[in-house]
Amino acid sequence: MGMIGGGIGAFIGDAHRRASRICNDFELVGGVFDADYGKSKEFAQKEGISADRCYESVDAMIAAELKMPAGRRMDVVAVVTPNALHYPFAKSLLENGFHVVCEKPMTMTVEEALDLERLVEKHRRTFALTHTYTGYPMVRQMRDLIAKGVLGTIQRIDAQYYQGWINSIIHGTESRITGVWRLDPKHAGVSSCMGDIGVHAFNLIEYTTGLEIKEVLSDLSPVKDDIKLDLDGTVLLRFGKNLKGVIRSSQVCGGEENCLTIAVYGSKASLKWGQENPNYLYMLSDTEPAKIFKPAHGYNEKLAESSHTMPSGHPEGIYEALANIYKGTAKSIRGEEFTPGEFPTVHDGVRGMKFIHSVVESNSRGNVWVKL
Amino acid sequence: MGMIGGGIGAFIGDAHRRASRICNDFELVGGVFDADYGKSKEFAQKEGISADRCYESVDAMIAAELKMPAGRRMDVVAVVTPNALHYPFAKSLLENGFHVVCEKPMTMTVEEALDLERLVEKHRRTFALTHTYTGYPMVRQMRDLIAKGVLGTIQRIDAQYYQGWINSIIHGTESRITGVWRLDPKHAGVSSCMGDIGVHAFNLIEYTTGLEIKEVLSDLSPVKDDIKLDLDGTVLLRFGKNLKGVIRSSQVCGGEENCLTIAVYGSKASLKWGQENPNYLYMLSDTEPAKIFKPAHGYNEKLAESSHTMPSGHPEGIYEALANIYKGTAKSIRGEEFTPGEFPTVHDGVRGMKFIHSVVESNSRGNVWVKL
Amino acid sequence: MGMIGGGIGAFIGDAHRRASRICNDFELVGGVFDADYGKSKEFAQKEGISADRCYESVDAMIAAELKMPAGRRMDVVAVVTPNALHYPFAKSLLENGFHVVCEKPMTMTVEEALDLERLVEKHRRTFALTHTYTGYPMVRQMRDLIAKGVLGTIQRIDAQYYQGWINSIIHGTESRITGVWRLDPKHAGVSSCMGDIGVHAFNLIEYTTGLEIKEVLSDLSPVKDDIKLDLDGTVLLRFGKNLKGVIRSSQVCGGEENCLTIAVYGSKASLKWGQENPNYLYMLSDTEPAKIFKPAHGYNEKLAESSHTMPSGHPEGIYEALANIYKGTAKSIRGEEFTPGEFPTVHDGVRGMKFIHSVVESNSRGNVWVKL
Amino acid sequence: MGMIGGGIGAFIGDAHRRASRICNDFELVGGVFDADYGKSKEFAQKEGISADRCYESVDAMIAAELKMPAGRRMDVVAVVTPNALHYPFAKSLLENGFHVVCEKPMTMTVEEALDLERLVEKHRRTFALTHTYTGYPMVRQMRDLIAKGVLGTIQRIDAQYYQGWINSIIHGTESRITGVWRLDPKHAGVSSCMGDIGVHAFNLIEYTTGLEIKEVLSDLSPVKDDIKLDLDGTVLLRFGKNLKGVIRSSQVCGGEENCLTIAVYGSKASLKWGQENPNYLYMLSDTEPAKIFKPAHGYNEKLAESSHTMPSGHPEGIYEALANIYKGTAKSIRGEEFTPGEFPTVHDGVRGMKFIHSVVESNSRGNVWVKL
Repeated sequence: MGMIGGGIGAFIGDAHRRASRICNDFELVGGVFDADYGKSKEFAQKEGISADRCYESVDAMIAAELKMPAGRRMDVVAVVTPNALHYPFAKSLLENGFHVVCEKPMTMTVEEALDLERLVEKHRRTFALTHTYTGYPMVRQMRDLIAKGVLGTIQRIDAQYYQGWINSIIHGTESRITGVWRLDPKHAGVSSCMGDIGVHAFNLIEYTTGLEIKEVLSDLSPVKDDIKLDLDGTVLLRFGKNLKGVIRSSQVCGGEENCLTIAVYGSKASLKWGQENPNYLYMLSDTEPAKIFKPAHGYNEKLAESSHTMPSGHPEGIYEALANIYKGTAKSIRGEEFTPGEFPTVHDGVRGMKFIHSVVESNSRGNVWVKL
Repeated sequence: MGMIGGGIGAFIGDAHRRASRICNDFELVGGVFDADYGKSKEFAQKEGISADRCYESVDAMIAAELKMPAGRRMDVVAVVTPNALHYPFAKSLLENGFHVVCEKPMTMTVEEALDLERLVEKHRRTFALTHTYTGYPMVRQMRDLIAKGVLGTIQRIDAQYYQGWINSIIHGTESRITGVWRLDPKHAGVSSCMGDIGVHAFNLIEYTTGLEIKEVLSDLSPVKDDIKLDLDGTVLLRFGKNLKGVIRSSQVCGGEENCLTIAVYGSKASLKWGQENPNYLYMLSDTEPAKIFKPAHGYNEKLAESSHTMPSGHPEGIYEALANIYKGTAKSIRGEEFTPGEFPTVHDGVRGMKFIHSVVESNSRGNVWVKL
Repeated sequence: MGMIGGGIGAFIGDAHRRASRICNDFELVGGVFDADYGKSKEFAQKEGISADRCYESVDAMIAAELKMPAGRRMDVVAVVTPNALHYPFAKSLLENGFHVVCEKPMTMTVEEALDLERLVEKHRRTFALTHTYTGYPMVRQMRDLIAKGVLGTIQRIDAQYYQGWINSIIHGTESRITGVWRLDPKHAGVSSCMGDIGVHAFNLIEYTTGLEIKEVLSDLSPVKDDIKLDLDGTVLLRFGKNLKGVIRSSQVCGGEENCLTIAVYGSKASLKWGQENPNYLYMLSDTEPAKIFKPAHGYNEKLAESSHTMPSGHPEGIYEALANIYKGTAKSIRGEEFTPGEFPTVHDGVRGMKFIHSVVESNSRGNVWVKL
Repeated sequence: MGMIGGGIGAFIGDAHRRASRICNDFELVGGVFDADYGKSKEFAQKEGISADRCYESVDAMIAAELKMPAGRRMDVVAVVTPNALHYPFAKSLLENGFHVVCEKPMTMTVEEALDLERLVEKHRRTFALTHTYTGYPMVRQMRDLIAKGVLGTIQRIDAQYYQGWINSIIHGTESRITGVWRLDPKHAGVSSCMGDIGVHAFNLIEYTTGLEIKEVLSDLSPVKDDIKLDLDGTVLLRFGKNLKGVIRSSQVCGGEENCLTIAVYGSKASLKWGQENPNYLYMLSDTEPAKIFKPAHGYNEKLAESSHTMPSGHPEGIYEALANIYKGTAKSIRGEEFTPGEFPTVHDGVRGMKFIHSVVESNSRGNVWVKL
């Protein structure tokens, strides 16, 4: 495995490396860890990565690796750069026959996303988009329970993603905004809150229910006058005639840590899950006691069960969720059989970009309905 | 105290009677407990209420009571009928000098609500609207903490009221809809979900924050084609330039019992409360451990403390919350000093009616912003 | 109903009065509310109780009430004095034909307890001991589920009652101990912690399981050198050959409010309940998702269901639990049919006294097994 | 790193490997993975471990590795065999200069434990005993808060370790007992429940409080007549004159997963932690709202903070806890500075063996006090 981005100080790159080691199907052998070659080399040395595979640029990396024999060459590359660079790097990698693991949001525009989808199809490569939360066993259990129809007719869907960390930045000093790439349209794209976290809530809805959101109406807020992107917003959802829902997402909910939740309400039963206690899945019913599903039990569906390794009551966390996605990706790369849902694909990326852009468009056009 | 409605089988009438006995400032001496005089008398006998004060009509009750001496006469009457009857009865009572305790929603129209507000003002009577949840000690603590400014600038407000009980009705047999007055516009008014429960979430927001919602944009759903009123909906809220929020309310969230929650997020700290565990108030902060406020502690503000009678850890519930409102109402009737917030007033009723009608209007005009 | 004790400043007397009003089967008509007649009269006036039924002594009360006609005479008296006075007053009341509601611990000695049991039998009176926690719907549900055998063979029982309020007293100034009757053997009896709260845990075990504790081995602690009674302790329990358990009880668990919990573990399933969130009963199983039982659902057993009046999700609390016991007591007094378990009896009082004295004996004899 | 035991089907060996990869300071290069050499080789191949370093016996491994140059030779070996083999293998390893990571319970007897302690001292090797739970950030925070004195005088300590998994075995068929090495004295030692899990509770108490348990009095139960070891028990603890506590531990609490909890109550404040939600540490106080400490916050002490890598709200779990212990072990092996508490040592193992043997002795002598 190679990596682009994720050098010193980048927490998401570290998460990818840990996850790849947990699942034990990957070995990081090289990459371009920083735009600054010096820093990149410093990082490689620290990680024990051979200096000759720490490259000055992505082009250089591709060229050099392609010259290596198949067994030695990196066959998959993780792209964990700021958002704006996902597309060009992923495109080059796919065109040169590399499999790709890519952070979200996948691209800056819907067009770029569609282009990647075409490239994946054309070059028949594995492309995994790391919507990490789909790697949790109980999220997978939720998906399978819904697929089995235990909820009856779905009647309402409600997802939330609240964080508070940006408070300390926007209420800080002048330099606060430029110092954070997520607040800069050049690097983050058209949205901060919806692009960074709202899209996770969106993905979780489509992942667990198998439904497609058809239309959105949003109301976004920059919260402070001098902020250029949304930090807060609510999105009304329509799935069909009698099924509506809502996504609420905010980066200014002071004290909230990483509060992603989803609730899917059906005519027969309902399911609720929250990321901060990921090993608890609640099923509600009007006629029976509420039930709590937990990992490592024979009553779970197959994919959920294979996504937890310790005995019940030994909590696994977010690294293990990401490792589950890496594990599914490895199966796909090796051409082994795998279940849809073992890792998010380029199609999830396309859907995510459509969501982000539709939400921003709805807001800028005065809170009107926009089709995805 | 007298009562209109609340006879055999009416749970809300029973709740009012219990609450009035808990607070021990009222004695139920008569009323019109059922539109059917026979049933009303049956109920009076069962409750040990003197037969001669079980009246055939509200007019008869008013006439007879007015002839009694001040000490014996009922000085306050609780109106716990279906929604459509709140206004005419409350109007007659006020015009004849009775204090009124009224269930919500207060009236069918905004005009009626404004008329009651005028009558309360003119006749200088006490009018208590039983938004019961404002009687919980920790809701009052939330109000006082916000008033003290501990949250900094409020940046987002999110309230939810989810129930599931209507599922068994709408998915039942044909007779299902006519048998439930809440689904019949004649008795329930323009809205089911927003009128019955959404308005509680609205009230809780204005009660705890002291802020006024300026505009709403709603998307409502009848969920089933043959239902005439909303059973589910989301309402976008605007309080001012950079403060937005959302109310989510539904009666088709299968398995949800009475899940009213409120979260108010500020630049310095945030507060979260939920009705099903009403004695826990959570304060979140980016820089300190989260805190859990509970009743019967010296650290609480004054009104919260006087709203709990047992030592800490002895849970009081919804009857005690309603009793707290009755207690405040009694103070007002007796002309004693009381704190604003000890009971919801006719003004809360006016605000509630504006909310319900604005929400319905927004939805029927195609999900546009409507000013309250 | 009459009352002995429970005047100004006595929270438990107030609880009894509220509970009796909630259940609406009792009216407080007189009593001896304070050893100081002046204070007693002051209290009676405040409560609106007729001055001529506010008596100077219990003897005077009994004499005067016996002269009244049956319909007017108080037929039941609540004894809510400090522990040492329960026995003489209850004895007089029973011997004169009054029904009795008595606070726990029932007496000072086992002999007194057995004497009361004989008197209740002899005079065929209703005697209710207010182990309030048995009035919670989910405690009753626990009892009925266990009686139905859903747990299989019971394998372990664990109850806890932790409070922290005494910390502020024992770490305070000199006058601290004499000022609190619970710390004074003359008023509280042989035990503080076990007598005041440990006995509740004991009662809850026997109430929910229907089992009898056969032997105890205890280790108690006064925590501070100058305290004369136990403030903290653990009691090993034996029910039979292969069934053991434990009661842990303490008044020095700083920050604990009223943390009474019980867990009963069986070969097929287990049940857990805690007093601070009394409307949640957890059933665990090795082969199924955990279940959460809540009040006001058709899936509950009969007694649990009749012990909750509001729709599900409307939390009732400790006053309603006590009211449920009063309601059962009223049925018994009126000679109506009732279910065993609707109120704790004099037999529960005898068992409790045996527990307290056995625990104290075990500790003073060097932590040896003592038979109940 | 080498490994003894932990081959195919051994979950604890897999946990050690994952943890060592997460912390990224170790590479598994060889070992003796199974007593059956064929299975051991099969495992090595599956893991991608060089066949020539998959050894037939521990002696062979030690001999071969000692011949390698320092840079290539395994410098630390993880011993994850059944309990009876920990001592002989650890002894050989230490005597030949290897650092050791050892599963608990460390040995079969106190004498063996003391011998290992002497060997560690003599050969100046790093010896890490994997009491995994001490690797959780919030356990470390608990330790540091107590060390700072925030609890005042400690007044009661209560730890619990409840599991239910053995139910399905003891209530199963005849072959059930011989098939599970934990139930066989030859492999498990003198105790099942206390040796396997009770000792974790013991360790957690001494780890978090820095106190030593002086005496124990236990009551153990085999639960079924044909079981030879304890499956359930309670242990009374004495720390000093006025400080007592209790450990409750059971393997027959049906439905409990891995419910290890600890509560330390002080005169000023108290702390509570539970393993199944390891990222929540509760601080209770009589005078302030309860507080919830979570990882990745500036308010935590230093060791807790360095034990969590993701931003707050991204839950890390048990693999990361074990990785934290591996990380501390690596520091020690490399001779870097580390904080006491970064990994449990051979001394913790000695204490644990004393605990297990004292508890068993107390029980077999008729529940008497036994000094550790």
